[in-house]
Amino acid sequence: MNGVRLAGVDREMSGRHRQEMAQLHYRKAVSSDVPAIIALLADDVLGTMREQVGPAIDARYATAFAEIDADPNQYLCVVEDGDAIVGTLQLTFIRGLSRTGALRGQIEAVRVASNRRGERIGEAMFEWAIEECRARGCSIVQLTTDKSRSDAHRFYDSLGFRDTHLGYKLNI
Amino acid sequence: MNGVRLAGVDREMSGRHRQEMAQLHYRKAVSSDVPAIIALLADDVLGTMREQVGPAIDARYATAFAEIDADPNQYLCVVEDGDAIVGTLQLTFIRGLSRTGALRGQIEAVRVASNRRGERIGEAMFEWAIEECRARGCSIVQLTTDKSRSDAHRFYDSLGFRDTHLGYKLNI
Repeated sequence: MNGVRLAGVDREMSGRHRQEMAQLHYRKAVSSDVPAIIALLADDVLGTMREQVGPAIDARYATAFAEIDADPNQYLCVVEDGDAIVGTLQLTFIRGLSRTGALRGQIEAVRVASNRRGERIGEAMFEWAIEECRARGCSIVQLTTDKSRSDAHRFYDSLGFRDTHLGYKLNI
Repeated sequence: MNGVRLAGVDREMSGRHRQEMAQLHYRKAVSSDVPAIIALLADDVLGTMREQVGPAIDARYATAFAEIDADPNQYLCVVEDGDAIVGTLQLTFIRGLSRTGALRGQIEAVRVASNRRGERIGEAMFEWAIEECRARGCSIVQLTTDKSRSDAHRFYDSLGFRDTHLGYKLNI
């Protein structure tokens, strides 16, 4: 049933994308994208408190990028419109034994540039991400989102996601 | 503050463990553990609908196990009491750029054998899992749990986890 709802969204969106978003291009991030990705992560009501943004990039980001880049189960994506990076998201593919050895696609760290919000770029990014998960053989796509992000909740509902779970976190 | 609450649980538990759980042993699963792990996954009100249990192990489980076993960011754990496997959980270590390149420890597929519930084995397993995440350099431990598992919610609360997020899933 999720699939049916999602297909509906796909059809509704496809006409808009052809007209408005012809230039969106999705690719795996390279090291020179790291400053732009960090800027996107920080450009957010929650993220601004968590990231270290300044003239020099904190070395921990470069180390983290190298690890992500080398992991075949990670896909850190940047979304370009022409020369501009307008969005980012991170996919992690997690194999488990449960559900007869299912592969899960997990989406984290989704951001759209603040000056490009309201153009349905987020929908297009999720369509891409779900299709990428399908192509990799995932049977489920999952994410968690802060309870305070009510706009995000309506957005995920509209894509066919269901908030069947609670997301627990423990800082250690 | 989570750390304080957790430390309190640790102290409260340590005396009990010494008396009641001296034999609990945690190790990385090997291929011959797969049937026992699947039996644990299926021995659950939700899992019983999802797993394929029978005289022969579905080949998809063996394939999935091989992939998990080869991935340095996966730790599929079995918990032994003497010769008996009494629990299982899966840890996945996920590097991201956000939070200055933080490593997350994600816990999935937690099960305690039905004939061993009520002995606080779950608490001991989570203490082990959180310590393993700390040793690997994680700054956050996360999990999602079905909204219907209210016993689990109280349990995670008691360990110091906070349900700050909603967990969205999409079957594809």
